[in-house]
Amino acid sequence: MKYFLALFFSCSAMGLMAQAPHPHTHDRSIHFPDINSGGMAGYRTLVCDFHQHTVFSDGSVWPDIRVQEAVRDSLDAISLTEHLEYQPHKDDLPHPDRNRSNAIAQQAAKAHDLIVVNGSEITREMPPGHNNALFITDANKLVVDDPYKAFEAAQQQGAFVFWNHPNWVAQTKDGIAKLTDMHRQLIAKKQLHGIEVVNESTYSDEALQIALDNGLTLMGTSDIHGLIDWQFRIAEGGHRPVTLVFAKERSAEAIKEALFDRRTAVWFDNMLIAREREMMPLLAASIKVEKAGYIGPSSVCEVLLRNDSDAEFILFNTSEYTLHEHGELLVLNPNGTTKIQVKTREQLPLFNLSFDVLNCVTAPKRHPQLQLSVKLP
Amino acid sequence: MKYFLALFFSCSAMGLMAQAPHPHTHDRSIHFPDINSGGMAGYRTLVCDFHQHTVFSDGSVWPDIRVQEAVRDSLDAISLTEHLEYQPHKDDLPHPDRNRSNAIAQQAAKAHDLIVVNGSEITREMPPGHNNALFITDANKLVVDDPYKAFEAAQQQGAFVFWNHPNWVAQTKDGIAKLTDMHRQLIAKKQLHGIEVVNESTYSDEALQIALDNGLTLMGTSDIHGLIDWQFRIAEGGHRPVTLVFAKERSAEAIKEALFDRRTAVWFDNMLIAREREMMPLLAASIKVEKAGYIGPSSVCEVLLRNDSDAEFILFNTSEYTLHEHGELLVLNPNGTTKIQVKTREQLPLFNLSFDVLNCVTAPKRHPQLQLSVKLP
Amino acid sequence: MKYFLALFFSCSAMGLMAQAPHPHTHDRSIHFPDINSGGMAGYRTLVCDFHQHTVFSDGSVWPDIRVQEAVRDSLDAISLTEHLEYQPHKDDLPHPDRNRSNAIAQQAAKAHDLIVVNGSEITREMPPGHNNALFITDANKLVVDDPYKAFEAAQQQGAFVFWNHPNWVAQTKDGIAKLTDMHRQLIAKKQLHGIEVVNESTYSDEALQIALDNGLTLMGTSDIHGLIDWQFRIAEGGHRPVTLVFAKERSAEAIKEALFDRRTAVWFDNMLIAREREMMPLLAASIKVEKAGYIGPSSVCEVLLRNDSDAEFILFNTSEYTLHEHGELLVLNPNGTTKIQVKTREQLPLFNLSFDVLNCVTAPKRHPQLQLSVKLP
Amino acid sequence: MKYFLALFFSCSAMGLMAQAPHPHTHDRSIHFPDINSGGMAGYRTLVCDFHQHTVFSDGSVWPDIRVQEAVRDSLDAISLTEHLEYQPHKDDLPHPDRNRSNAIAQQAAKAHDLIVVNGSEITREMPPGHNNALFITDANKLVVDDPYKAFEAAQQQGAFVFWNHPNWVAQTKDGIAKLTDMHRQLIAKKQLHGIEVVNESTYSDEALQIALDNGLTLMGTSDIHGLIDWQFRIAEGGHRPVTLVFAKERSAEAIKEALFDRRTAVWFDNMLIAREREMMPLLAASIKVEKAGYIGPSSVCEVLLRNDSDAEFILFNTSEYTLHEHGELLVLNPNGTTKIQVKTREQLPLFNLSFDVLNCVTAPKRHPQLQLSVKLP
Repeated sequence: MKYFLALFFSCSAMGLMAQAPHPHTHDRSIHFPDINSGGMAGYRTLVCDFHQHTVFSDGSVWPDIRVQEAVRDSLDAISLTEHLEYQPHKDDLPHPDRNRSNAIAQQAAKAHDLIVVNGSEITREMPPGHNNALFITDANKLVVDDPYKAFEAAQQQGAFVFWNHPNWVAQTKDGIAKLTDMHRQLIAKKQLHGIEVVNESTYSDEALQIALDNGLTLMGTSDIHGLIDWQFRIAEGGHRPVTLVFAKERSAEAIKEALFDRRTAVWFDNMLIAREREMMPLLAASIKVEKAGYIGPSSVCEVLLRNDSDAEFILFNTSEYTLHEHGELLVLNPNGTTKIQVKTREQLPLFNLSFDVLNCVTAPKRHPQLQLSVKLP
Repeated sequence: MKYFLALFFSCSAMGLMAQAPHPHTHDRSIHFPDINSGGMAGYRTLVCDFHQHTVFSDGSVWPDIRVQEAVRDSLDAISLTEHLEYQPHKDDLPHPDRNRSNAIAQQAAKAHDLIVVNGSEITREMPPGHNNALFITDANKLVVDDPYKAFEAAQQQGAFVFWNHPNWVAQTKDGIAKLTDMHRQLIAKKQLHGIEVVNESTYSDEALQIALDNGLTLMGTSDIHGLIDWQFRIAEGGHRPVTLVFAKERSAEAIKEALFDRRTAVWFDNMLIAREREMMPLLAASIKVEKAGYIGPSSVCEVLLRNDSDAEFILFNTSEYTLHEHGELLVLNPNGTTKIQVKTREQLPLFNLSFDVLNCVTAPKRHPQLQLSVKLP
Repeated sequence: MKYFLALFFSCSAMGLMAQAPHPHTHDRSIHFPDINSGGMAGYRTLVCDFHQHTVFSDGSVWPDIRVQEAVRDSLDAISLTEHLEYQPHKDDLPHPDRNRSNAIAQQAAKAHDLIVVNGSEITREMPPGHNNALFITDANKLVVDDPYKAFEAAQQQGAFVFWNHPNWVAQTKDGIAKLTDMHRQLIAKKQLHGIEVVNESTYSDEALQIALDNGLTLMGTSDIHGLIDWQFRIAEGGHRPVTLVFAKERSAEAIKEALFDRRTAVWFDNMLIAREREMMPLLAASIKVEKAGYIGPSSVCEVLLRNDSDAEFILFNTSEYTLHEHGELLVLNPNGTTKIQVKTREQLPLFNLSFDVLNCVTAPKRHPQLQLSVKLP
Repeated sequence: MKYFLALFFSCSAMGLMAQAPHPHTHDRSIHFPDINSGGMAGYRTLVCDFHQHTVFSDGSVWPDIRVQEAVRDSLDAISLTEHLEYQPHKDDLPHPDRNRSNAIAQQAAKAHDLIVVNGSEITREMPPGHNNALFITDANKLVVDDPYKAFEAAQQQGAFVFWNHPNWVAQTKDGIAKLTDMHRQLIAKKQLHGIEVVNESTYSDEALQIALDNGLTLMGTSDIHGLIDWQFRIAEGGHRPVTLVFAKERSAEAIKEALFDRRTAVWFDNMLIAREREMMPLLAASIKVEKAGYIGPSSVCEVLLRNDSDAEFILFNTSEYTLHEHGELLVLNPNGTTKIQVKTREQLPLFNLSFDVLNCVTAPKRHPQLQLSVKLP
């Protein structure tokens, strides 16, 4: 009975909808703190998903659902990147204007504080495979036969372009991302700027190495076609993969600047992937010593660690001290605190802890080291 | 990375997807037992939702999502009842063939054991308001200016037609369902056969009375436009409203026969609405005495009641006996057992219990009475 | 490694113990609002459990556990009512001073804001069965052969005395509470003042009638011997039965005054039992109209009801209006709000709602009627 | 109303107690598989907690509660190890026979399939600190002034003796376990056989090293004084620390033999501690390749790993292959399956995976390596 309703009156003028929240409802909003350390002072941490589909290519929802999913996940920015070349619904949805999906989403996003970036997927056989162009001004101009021309058209619009799922088994039978000559050329011509190290349910160590070797921006996306809730088991505590963008402010322009400057991290399952430059300030902003004190006359120091992020950090103790209530492995509760007891052998006014952060990677087989300085009051 | 995948290989040839189920995952399947008592021997209880929308009218999903939602809810049958006259997406989706939504759903349902019934919504101002025609053969023929002609066209196709949300405030400012002369004529001409007593989040006592007074089939539907998961809070244990159809077999033909014969019940929140003829065998099939025995030498009899349905029955004890562990009010766990202790004052070989079933209605302000006979072993 | 610890240092000087609460942890604290209406203006609602056992009679825990359980349940007052005559552990625990259990609990309660009332259970065959004496000054003086003398000794100490589980099948084979001549005498001599209508897992309609007929205070108790957590399935959302005492202030003296004045209610499973005098102000304090407004130009009024209690009230609509989203049955979320939509047929500046409150009883087969006045802004 | 009940009739003759289980109830039973590989063929894995207190020393419960806790946790064996010298309740509970606690527990355990081992705690200042003697025949003979004599008395009874919480800050201010000359003598005289590497909420790397250096059996215990449910947050999914004993059969005698032979592992939080001899067969019995198959024509192999234990194994991939859906870190669901996708670069008939198991330790800073051989069908 939906449609006339809006004509007559807004659904609930008084905002009476507030009900007692069900005790087991999962808070699905994705949250990481802003960063402010190292050379990365004063950046906003924006949560973005720049690879999504709707009925305007091979997805199964109208663009308004993508906006509502993003609002429920408290994303800052999305892009609906319809395949330009692959249009299985085109008999039903001819849609001659390839900017149409974006236009509908922009309209739907107006009621919310959500940034919608115009984007499209250049969908080709390998090479160059699939690539997303973001911040385009007119998708129609990317519909050309020669793939090189498509990248040039994107460049002419000032687009940020990244390579999708270089590990995709349908195009790379062994699932191993490998750079081709064509990709090298595109990079050289500054027509390819990023690469997905995470796509949907997959992660690629090899794509991470390619990114590091070639100065590409690290991207992680849902590549959603169906429903976010089902694909990523939201009700069971799951989340979609996202790209964390470290931007000077919360705007499309600032996101674009950050993407070209490679200031991103990828959040996938319980894994964070970022260059050291971004990883260290993100860890510093996420994990803090909240309180510390020796237990009575003992030399066992109780330390309360605060984790202001969604990540359940998995730490491996490499300090010179052993812990009283843990082995080497230590799991930090997300968005909460975790208590540890450090056996410092004598009461110290100040001491250092160091941990390998195993669920974070800065390069294949390289994990950041977290240093925490504990000062006694 | 969806689309090529199907060309190369099925996603998971070995069916390896089985994971340990998350302990808090809600089982969303809707279940009521078959009935087999009174004059209603041997009917299958089929779970149906015959009022739904997709992008082909004013909904927000492609028809395949409606099929997947139904499969997740373990429905037996659905119908996608697009508005014939209200087509807000028609610039994007011209869809000249009004059977198109149904055709796509039929195709998507092939992989599942789901019945898709061709239907359409005749969408008019009051009277006659909105009405759904099910089991039509060609929706295009219902697209006519004169509403009377639309009902005639439906009748010519042998359609089962029901009045949607007669309580809709956009068409009936007080939310009180009222029969109009036009509806009386349609009923007299056997062109209107059912009425929604439940639509989306609403229930209408007045619609129930109209149904009883005019021999209309009781219908309950989701009228979904967005996502079932969100609208009906599936993750928090909610469910969509459905019509339980008591059919001779699990087929479209049998459902049609049952609808014309008014053999339905409506399941909404924790409420069951049905005529006495259907309600009593449904209660009899749902609630059973599983076991009984006196506690030691006492005259307190422990009785285990089994409830084989999704309803959390709210019983009000009208027996001659009081209970040892409850007041008059008794709640039966859904799909499980509930233990009661009956104080029969002396050990009896056989005794009767009677309860008003408060969450069930057979008419406005009328609740069925459940009689249970307890035989001691 | 418990014991030396306290000698050296307090366990956690900084209070670092605060951890992120587990999302599924049940809040077990029992809460009902203070009352302030009718002739019952300005009473504190105190949550009390006055029938408990420890190793000092036939229970399985030391008194400190009873204190900790009470603190976890946020009770205001408890009493450890050891059997005076039944001492199965006496070979191990000779305990010549029958006040010993109370003394230990008093000591343990010092660190908490918990009132411990000295009490004992006079444990005899029927009549008089088992009876608890509260607010005694010396339990030893109640250890006498003649049961009449025991009640006299309690009276001499100013004790408040109530009859335990008059429905107990071990003493009353049919589980039906029945007043004996001896009980009548004790009541007449003002030596018996209350009666359990709820004991552990049982409720007695007949005990309620006896209380009303004889001016006895309504009591509900856990009669715990083992662990509260296990017996009452705390982890699954259960709670122990308690007596709500409406007292002038939060003190032992004020509780005693309230008990003698019969100002109590009993909270058992989801059932509240009280005289009308106490029930009506308790309902008034628990259930309030928080907000109301008509939906657009319609005559359907959205009303937000707030329930400030642990009870999940089960209401049966007896208003002149039907509801838009419910049948006659309405369940109010505990400690939260519930939205209803009332079809008032025209927009009214003020209207009344009335409901039978089915999970509350003021007498056998009598349920209070809730009247709510809805004023539009 | 507990006590007479047993005299008259058993509580529920028909076993009617079965109710529908609450969906969020935690299954608290502790489970690890029997082992059958390496030199450790055919051992039962028994779950044991050999350090507990009751009111008979400084605990807060009667021994029957310890039996019920053990039954709920599905332990195989317990011991109530009352302090011989520390008797804070002795004025109330003089208990001249120091075997009394054990006798009561034995009696309570008769209804259950639980082994109760007679034990006592020799409670002294350091050295030797606190030590538990298990399988004693008469605790009274251990009550002697000279600590050496107490160990001798235990030895004469054939007792298995282990050192409790060598890391206890009340006796070792820095929490660092250190062997004393006295302990060395006791070990040399074969009067000390084991050491707690885990006590209550603490783990000691240093104690593990002492065990390895001196051939001591690894022990982990709850050292419970209050309630298991509270101390170890059972409702939130926690568990008590236990010693897994690999025994020839499920008997006290076989447990004793296994303890003297050092065939144990310790299960604490999500950590397993064992010598390599026991760890490797325990891992082999817990983790298995259930199924494997290549995805279509790709060289990505889907492998289903089954984990038949309570441990959530935290694996670190050291194979020559990378994974398609994980980084190096992999978490195996307890008592369930986890799917991984291995990128083998070409389809192989057989390949090997290797992982460091980070939540398991075989020595300070040493983690076992898991080797899995995947054979394609």
